[in-house]
Amino acid sequence: MDNSQLRGSKAMNYLFYPRSIAIIGASANPAKPGGMPIVSLINNGYTGSIYPVNPKHVKIAGLPCYPSLSDIPDEVDLAVIAVSAQLTQKALHECAAKKVKAAIVFTSGFAEVGGSGIKFQEDMAILARESDIALCGPNCMGIFNAQNAMTAGFVISELPEKVIVPNFFGFISQSGGFGAIMHAIASDRGIGFTYFISSGNETDLQFADYLAYMVEDAATKVIGGYLEGIKDGRKLFQAAEMALQAKKPVILIKTGRHPAAARAASSHTGALAGSDRVYSSFFKQKGIIRAESVEEFITILSLLAGNSLPRGNKVGIIVGSGGNGVLLADKCVEAGLEVGLLSTHTQASLSKLLPSFGTTANPIDMTSRILTDPTLLRETTNLVIKDPGVDMLIILHWASRKGWSQPTREIVDLLAHSGKPVLVLVWGSDEAAIEDLRFFREHQVPAVREIDYAARSLAALAKYSAKVDSYFNRSQISHSPMPDREKTAVLLKSYKPGDKLSESQSKEILRSCGILTTRESLATNEEEAVKIAAGLGCHVALKIDSPDIPHKTEAGGVKLNIETPEKIKEAYREIIHSVKKHNPDALIRGILVQEMLTGGIEVIAGISRDPVFGPTVMFGLGGIFVEALEDVSLRIAPLNMEDTREMIGEIKGFKVLSGLRGKPPADQEAIVDVLLKLSQISVDFPQINELDINPLFVFPKGQGVRAADVLITI
Amino acid sequence: MDNSQLRGSKAMNYLFYPRSIAIIGASANPAKPGGMPIVSLINNGYTGSIYPVNPKHVKIAGLPCYPSLSDIPDEVDLAVIAVSAQLTQKALHECAAKKVKAAIVFTSGFAEVGGSGIKFQEDMAILARESDIALCGPNCMGIFNAQNAMTAGFVISELPEKVIVPNFFGFISQSGGFGAIMHAIASDRGIGFTYFISSGNETDLQFADYLAYMVEDAATKVIGGYLEGIKDGRKLFQAAEMALQAKKPVILIKTGRHPAAARAASSHTGALAGSDRVYSSFFKQKGIIRAESVEEFITILSLLAGNSLPRGNKVGIIVGSGGNGVLLADKCVEAGLEVGLLSTHTQASLSKLLPSFGTTANPIDMTSRILTDPTLLRETTNLVIKDPGVDMLIILHWASRKGWSQPTREIVDLLAHSGKPVLVLVWGSDEAAIEDLRFFREHQVPAVREIDYAARSLAALAKYSAKVDSYFNRSQISHSPMPDREKTAVLLKSYKPGDKLSESQSKEILRSCGILTTRESLATNEEEAVKIAAGLGCHVALKIDSPDIPHKTEAGGVKLNIETPEKIKEAYREIIHSVKKHNPDALIRGILVQEMLTGGIEVIAGISRDPVFGPTVMFGLGGIFVEALEDVSLRIAPLNMEDTREMIGEIKGFKVLSGLRGKPPADQEAIVDVLLKLSQISVDFPQINELDINPLFVFPKGQGVRAADVLITI
Repeated sequence: MDNSQLRGSKAMNYLFYPRSIAIIGASANPAKPGGMPIVSLINNGYTGSIYPVNPKHVKIAGLPCYPSLSDIPDEVDLAVIAVSAQLTQKALHECAAKKVKAAIVFTSGFAEVGGSGIKFQEDMAILARESDIALCGPNCMGIFNAQNAMTAGFVISELPEKVIVPNFFGFISQSGGFGAIMHAIASDRGIGFTYFISSGNETDLQFADYLAYMVEDAATKVIGGYLEGIKDGRKLFQAAEMALQAKKPVILIKTGRHPAAARAASSHTGALAGSDRVYSSFFKQKGIIRAESVEEFITILSLLAGNSLPRGNKVGIIVGSGGNGVLLADKCVEAGLEVGLLSTHTQASLSKLLPSFGTTANPIDMTSRILTDPTLLRETTNLVIKDPGVDMLIILHWASRKGWSQPTREIVDLLAHSGKPVLVLVWGSDEAAIEDLRFFREHQVPAVREIDYAARSLAALAKYSAKVDSYFNRSQISHSPMPDREKTAVLLKSYKPGDKLSESQSKEILRSCGILTTRESLATNEEEAVKIAAGLGCHVALKIDSPDIPHKTEAGGVKLNIETPEKIKEAYREIIHSVKKHNPDALIRGILVQEMLTGGIEVIAGISRDPVFGPTVMFGLGGIFVEALEDVSLRIAPLNMEDTREMIGEIKGFKVLSGLRGKPPADQEAIVDVLLKLSQISVDFPQINELDINPLFVFPKGQGVRAADVLITI
Repeated sequence: MDNSQLRGSKAMNYLFYPRSIAIIGASANPAKPGGMPIVSLINNGYTGSIYPVNPKHVKIAGLPCYPSLSDIPDEVDLAVIAVSAQLTQKALHECAAKKVKAAIVFTSGFAEVGGSGIKFQEDMAILARESDIALCGPNCMGIFNAQNAMTAGFVISELPEKVIVPNFFGFISQSGGFGAIMHAIASDRGIGFTYFISSGNETDLQFADYLAYMVEDAATKVIGGYLEGIKDGRKLFQAAEMALQAKKPVILIKTGRHPAAARAASSHTGALAGSDRVYSSFFKQKGIIRAESVEEFITILSLLAGNSLPRGNKVGIIVGSGGNGVLLADKCVEAGLEVGLLSTHTQASLSKLLPSFGTTANPIDMTSRILTDPTLLRETTNLVIKDPGVDMLIILHWASRKGWSQPTREIVDLLAHSGKPVLVLVWGSDEAAIEDLRFFREHQVPAVREIDYAARSLAALAKYSAKVDSYFNRSQISHSPMPDREKTAVLLKSYKPGDKLSESQSKEILRSCGILTTRESLATNEEEAVKIAAGLGCHVALKIDSPDIPHKTEAGGVKLNIETPEKIKEAYREIIHSVKKHNPDALIRGILVQEMLTGGIEVIAGISRDPVFGPTVMFGLGGIFVEALEDVSLRIAPLNMEDTREMIGEIKGFKVLSGLRGKPPADQEAIVDVLLKLSQISVDFPQINELDINPLFVFPKGQGVRAADVLITI
């Protein structure tokens, strides 16, 4: 998985900028998949060559139709394949023979139906790779490139006539139907597409390839996608990193969060659903904006199209009714925004402007005076938007068929060029609202009907903006030194895949990576145990050391808080007795005599391998937090320092680490160091399948951490 | 607060069904508050008498205008007061002299501006009560009653011409502006109002009075409200109970959840914001549907207007694109619904109907075949809606200006009369969508544009339906016997307000109420302590017993796990020493020698007094759950058994009680019993201000609970 490579622009250019297109399985019926692209390419004014292929026709849509691909006299850059599943492999072989550079396979009936369909799809991928064909699909609705009118799809056949923001947005959809809806709505809002891709089953080109292509494309400013699941998380990780680096926002709708939906997803495009927890961690890590619905998606997109990013998190709210101000403030705070505090200067100016029963504090209530004095809004907005306490603005607008209130319409110039994101919230009856919504959108002022979307979209933008800032200002430290990498490698060599290491074996590896553990030694008899305990200050724990006993407590293999030689000997005997009873065949390496740690906070940290994304690092508070609340955070390796800080900060129980009830705050920097080391270990030593430190004791600030128990599997 | 009484229908009938209305401060300008009601009442066809009052006019709108109220020859049922704040009190005195029965005060400038405004408003309330005037306002926009065309407001002057569901919905708004918007949108959707009330500052009639009035009103089927905060929670508690009993759904938008918004609310209508935690607990307790936005509110309302309540929690989803099915399933599960499993019979019938690449499991994917075969939808819907695995249905409809897809339009008859709630989700461009939305709504099929609202609204309905069921099937046990109420009363008599009781004093009261505590006795010297310990099995805790030391641990007043006589004596001395050092003036009643409990789960339970709602009962897991996560649930007393079960089930750490990692489940019935007793105590003994059991040890099922520490304040 770590060798996965993005396809690169060169190969994919043939898909999006073909000089010639053959349609294999061409149809004279423009409603059919084999017919629509021909008519659509002609009507939209595509200037390359179009070659219908079908032995049953001589001409289609006025173009000569060829009996087979090999009969085409010219080179073919792109083949659109619209034949039955049985004939697809043959068609691809013909493409290979003709040295076609790219192909789109509309045909369904592959991995999504299971059985032999999976095998046929794999064959297709192998053939495509061997023949250097960049293949889109199968089970897809095709693509279009609005820049050269290259519409090679069978659902979206017409490009919108009127575009307010041209060449702005590229969209990748794992569902053709959903993509078509998204295209309809975004076009309706005046958002111009660069590329649209229905990626289907992604047997060759994957979501990540298209994403990376558009990151490198100069025209595309924002990239969106509908995602059900991916096969290769490392590629998506790379592409997302490229997007962050290029400051191109990526907005995704990711479904399959819940098992019922995940089940539906896998029967839909044969996508691997994967764990939503890992996806959402990955989105956070790479600044991908996850939209929760179509309207939220479109609102974020409109904001990106119309305005600059907010510099901070503080929203200004201007209303004509106090109650609405309260409601909006609530929603904004809930979405994670701050209701900005206006300067005394702004407030003083506002109080001169507004009626005495108005509110000059944010949310600003102009009162119903706005109905009789429309100039109030321009002046209020002008004052508020200039205030440094406001990074973005929401204005509540009452639409009315009777032109009850027009002030907002009159200040669109101010709103569209304010330099801060502005959103107009349009309320009123459907008919009245639609007219005003269109008016604002035509003037490039993002306008929505619902408070939820207003607040959540602005919050998503603020979060993205903060992520970009932190990405470019991030600490250059992205790993923590590993003192003895050679030794770690040597130690690991003595184990084979599937091995579960005992506690002392695991800890030896951990220490070689520079993570401190409890002081301890392995005793092989009672006297030795007493001697070791004396060296540790006589307050010790005894634990069975066996690769065959992963759950030591359940096996009666742990005794804590032992303080006298007699009790140590007694504990030694009891442990051996009960472990042997529990598992007579267990290999017993001895008993670990270990200092008892007191006064720290127990956390857990570890490495695991995600089937989609590969190595991940996990962090959480120990005990009940993990058992009852599943309160853990995770990130995909490699992590940087900001990632580890976010991980620590996002657990629900974070308060415990920051010093609860007068207790000293925990040594968070030491946790950061451990997480960075775990990231490095997971990348450098892929033979480690799982590594769990549980518990890791965290002491007060400056006093570091100690791993009290560790379990490694190879 | 416990004596608060709802006003009752008789007095309020004068407000909503007046035979005559006087407008004090009448204006000839119909745009002004004193002018609009006159024109509006005439235009809407109000048949009672209208008496404009203003010494400056002889006639207004063709009606004789009276110099003063006393000059009106007839009796006046309702006075609308639209004079300045200074003249309001005088106008009210005139109303009293004229024996006016009800009044609406539009005038602003009272509690919401603070200062002397608060006092003027209180005077107004006193005068209204003494003169038996049912007073609405001040600082309000008035009311209307659509049933007798009684429009006594100054923002909503026209009643909608076309109503699809007449006389259905009553709305109470603490914000006039918000109410006007709500009225516009609901009217636009064809929802007919019975009453509309802008309640303003609620100095006399309160939100709860209007609510109760509409519960008792035969016409009103559903009641809605916009709430910023209330003064008297007990009245709202009563009114909400009446609504639940009458099976009339109450939908509220409650703002002021976050401090920034709460601040804005208090400057708006002078509402007391109160704690959102208490409000939301109260809503859960009484089945009040809390809508999170206007669109959600309206969608719930439309569902209530168009369909019966769902019998269960299981949703069916019918789509024409797999991706959309996945997205919808996700949203439904997230909102708390279950994606229903279809019977094998239904699935078999579907598989005959649908193309082979369709999905017969829920979500049902008809595929794009629906575009060419519109009859598919009728047959699919017919099969799915009859399946017992489906309690409600969402159908995704693609709107299109070009009539791309019409099948959903053709089955509105089926949808509107299915007997199960059905929601059509309309996607597409604004123009296309609006046409179809209107079509569905006119045919009484609730239709929305956004997935979020579809899922959340149906979930809200399912939850309400379950609440009604549980209310009518609730256990008749709503309290737990208190063995010795007389003794409790006698014990409490020895304390005075402000007293904090010591642990042993608090426990004595708790035991008199039938809640078991740890076994323990008070020792006043070392020898006595040793003797008591021997009686308790020698494993004890020692705790200082002093009303002056509420935080015993911090004062060094607690020693745990003591097992020998020497250690008991030593602990005794140490406690006395360190407590005296901590607080030399503390009254020391002795040292409590207490059995050490082991093996239970620590929870907390208690009583406190909310300034708005009065006595509340609280429950949570102990320790870190409360400290770091504030993971507690609460309800307003009195509680019934279902309330206590909900409280236990809704904490985040509930898993801990249900038997984590093979541990036995905790004795939840014993917790139920304690919570019911606390409810009873809080109602029967209002002199108890606070009562905290922390910790309460809960043992495995059947083994009960023990209070290990209790603190009571009087």
